[in-house]
Amino acid sequence: MPTPHESATQNEDANIAALKELLRIPSVSTQDAYRADIRRAAGWIHERLTAIGFLVEIHETPRHPVVVGRWTGAGSDAPTLLIYGHYDVQPPDPVEEWVTPPFEPDLRDGSLYARGASDDKGQLFVHIAAIEAILAADGTLPVNVTFVVEGEEEIGSPNLGSFVRNHADLLAADAALVSDTHIRGLDYPTIVYSLRGLLYTQLDVSGPRGDLHSGHYGGAIHNPAQALTEIIASMHDEDGAVAVPGFYDAVLPLQDDERADIARIPYSEDTLLDETGAPAAWGEPEYSVSERIGGRPTLEVNGLISGYTEPGAKTVLPAQAMAKISCRLVANQDPDTIFELVRRHIETVAPPTVRWELTKIAAGKAALTDRNAPVVQAAVRAYQEHWGTRPDFVREGGSIPVVAVLQDTLGVPVVLMGFGLPDDNLHAPNEKFSLECFRRGVATSIGFIQQIGSIRS
Amino acid sequence: MPTPHESATQNEDANIAALKELLRIPSVSTQDAYRADIRRAAGWIHERLTAIGFLVEIHETPRHPVVVGRWTGAGSDAPTLLIYGHYDVQPPDPVEEWVTPPFEPDLRDGSLYARGASDDKGQLFVHIAAIEAILAADGTLPVNVTFVVEGEEEIGSPNLGSFVRNHADLLAADAALVSDTHIRGLDYPTIVYSLRGLLYTQLDVSGPRGDLHSGHYGGAIHNPAQALTEIIASMHDEDGAVAVPGFYDAVLPLQDDERADIARIPYSEDTLLDETGAPAAWGEPEYSVSERIGGRPTLEVNGLISGYTEPGAKTVLPAQAMAKISCRLVANQDPDTIFELVRRHIETVAPPTVRWELTKIAAGKAALTDRNAPVVQAAVRAYQEHWGTRPDFVREGGSIPVVAVLQDTLGVPVVLMGFGLPDDNLHAPNEKFSLECFRRGVATSIGFIQQIGSIRS
Repeated sequence: MPTPHESATQNEDANIAALKELLRIPSVSTQDAYRADIRRAAGWIHERLTAIGFLVEIHETPRHPVVVGRWTGAGSDAPTLLIYGHYDVQPPDPVEEWVTPPFEPDLRDGSLYARGASDDKGQLFVHIAAIEAILAADGTLPVNVTFVVEGEEEIGSPNLGSFVRNHADLLAADAALVSDTHIRGLDYPTIVYSLRGLLYTQLDVSGPRGDLHSGHYGGAIHNPAQALTEIIASMHDEDGAVAVPGFYDAVLPLQDDERADIARIPYSEDTLLDETGAPAAWGEPEYSVSERIGGRPTLEVNGLISGYTEPGAKTVLPAQAMAKISCRLVANQDPDTIFELVRRHIETVAPPTVRWELTKIAAGKAALTDRNAPVVQAAVRAYQEHWGTRPDFVREGGSIPVVAVLQDTLGVPVVLMGFGLPDDNLHAPNEKFSLECFRRGVATSIGFIQQIGSIRS
Repeated sequence: MPTPHESATQNEDANIAALKELLRIPSVSTQDAYRADIRRAAGWIHERLTAIGFLVEIHETPRHPVVVGRWTGAGSDAPTLLIYGHYDVQPPDPVEEWVTPPFEPDLRDGSLYARGASDDKGQLFVHIAAIEAILAADGTLPVNVTFVVEGEEEIGSPNLGSFVRNHADLLAADAALVSDTHIRGLDYPTIVYSLRGLLYTQLDVSGPRGDLHSGHYGGAIHNPAQALTEIIASMHDEDGAVAVPGFYDAVLPLQDDERADIARIPYSEDTLLDETGAPAAWGEPEYSVSERIGGRPTLEVNGLISGYTEPGAKTVLPAQAMAKISCRLVANQDPDTIFELVRRHIETVAPPTVRWELTKIAAGKAALTDRNAPVVQAAVRAYQEHWGTRPDFVREGGSIPVVAVLQDTLGVPVVLMGFGLPDDNLHAPNEKFSLECFRRGVATSIGFIQQIGSIRS
């Protein structure tokens, strides 16, 4: 009989082919046009988990369904591991910048290119492949496993919180595992212990009831596009700190030992500039770039639109202007409080010469995990075995709202076991997932599951 | 034999049908997709002027052609009137806000609705109809007439200046007539003696080489959309004055008698708010709204685009952000100088954390006409006869760059004989031209041409 690791190796080609099937489904959660594809992706997960022996149900929510699959063969005395993933993806635009089409997975240079390859279909599939390999080799698992796979992560998981609260018994577990983060590099495995939260809003500014001729009215009407820029410009000070009053009030300061840990990881301004192509670093001068990304909250403009944006000239005074504005939050900041602070700030700075409306689109809390929890230490050992080195503990700048939900609602430690690479082009054209990360990820997941049979929360 | 006025009345239905033909051609000059339609519109003008006895030529320019039609039957001792118009139109977007499609002219409630109905196909056609009527009734005209009809007015007439300079002999005239402005109302005919100039630019701000995940980089990279808002916000002070250093240096102050004339025309802040639906007036507090529009320069944001602008959320840190920024200028302000001042201001305020580029898209000087020129006084009498009241002299906020070109290059007085109404929705959805304005316009044009046989510049 093969070992689980041998079984995984034998099945690799078939597994990549299966992952490609899932990646071909354009399950973009933010746009209604993809609603049918979202359901196809949920159906695909249902089918795959059923095939490896899980009892699977698709649960409706007000928007996109949650797939829950349970394997309880370890018996009621064994602990239960909850594995979270998401089958939805970011929109692929700008589509013209993709080398190969975003929903036609292409294997080249040792990586699989497709929207969702790394975030999160590929990383979710790592655990499906690992469990399949253990079951194929051993006929059983040392723990019960519950998969909870949602379709709304990229829109801020608006329904997952209530779903988890309403199904706390179904989802009860001793530990939770989330693979939706990246490692520093193939030689630098990483366990994320801190994630930023997210508040995503839309600011609409309007003035005249319709677009006006800028010659006939310009100078006597406050241009809504100009007013929008003035409101947004007021939200940062000259040093790059957020200037919304009260924004930093709840922020837990970074501890000295954490700052020392962060400083040991060689991520310099030069690295940042190499990775991004930006002309210079930016942000709060009293923090390193790693600290700004991992330990400090931000306010970003994610989109702007107003008036005429085609080639050439149109002398319009636009009736409306819109900005997408989001905040990355750190532990102890409440998204609802921050929304209210932003709203009050706009109320203070917005002039009576325009109308405005701020709409909350998504909100999720930040999360901090105890680095000393036994399940986290099991993950440390699994990485060490299959990547040849001890993993770094890092703070991640991205948001996975479910982590706070699982911690707060189910009361379980959440292990953030990432397998993506920093250059995976998440949320951007040419997203990819390295085959080497897939292979090591499957081995690490097998090793982790084999160790946690005795862990109870 | 009918009089010219009787002939015009008899031909009204046929003339409206002909104007509808011209309005059906989507001759949008700013977008390359309409290039063939631009040529169809030029061809239509060629055909129509030929049909009423003009010798017509289509002159190529680097972009859209100029149609020149000459009637020299009055003989070399008679003066020559140059009539300017433009056959190009603004883009129709937002198309969904039109009650009937922009290029399917619809006659309802006494007005003809179509893109270009008032600006400028309808107003140009008024003079074609007037001349046709005089020729039909009298067999001749008291003056030679040259039509010069361009296809680039809505993109700032980039080639008309050199065309006029290179064809100064062909276009030599004793007076010029331009109908591309509006009157205050059916009971308030208007002669515009001042037009604002225009500088139209595009500001591109960029940072990272591609869109980034706002979680993975937010806080350490200057967001180009945010930087763009900060640059634009720096361009006005709190009172609504333009804060670009040197912007007002060349502005000729409004004279006391002009300010008194302007104050006599009852255009209040309430009128402005009724017309536009804006919540409040805005702008330089030391000037009335009419003065701000007619006598003061401005800086407007005509368009903004960056990042994600569809429904929902995408947590992108955009690689680029773009704004269309234009200035309305007054007499004595040079567009090239203003461009340089704006560029220098951006150089001063733009941080080294982003890259930027300012591109000039269009430029045209402002114009002031002598209210006492004999040809202007002839226009006063023609209005008085056919509208029952003496016209007001007003300053117009819009730009017709050709007026400065004709004045400066040909050395002729330019009469701005407008027939549009303030609610014609220029550059906006549901543009229209009132049939009553068309009728009175034709009568006024006939009356004007009949009076100017003895005028020589």
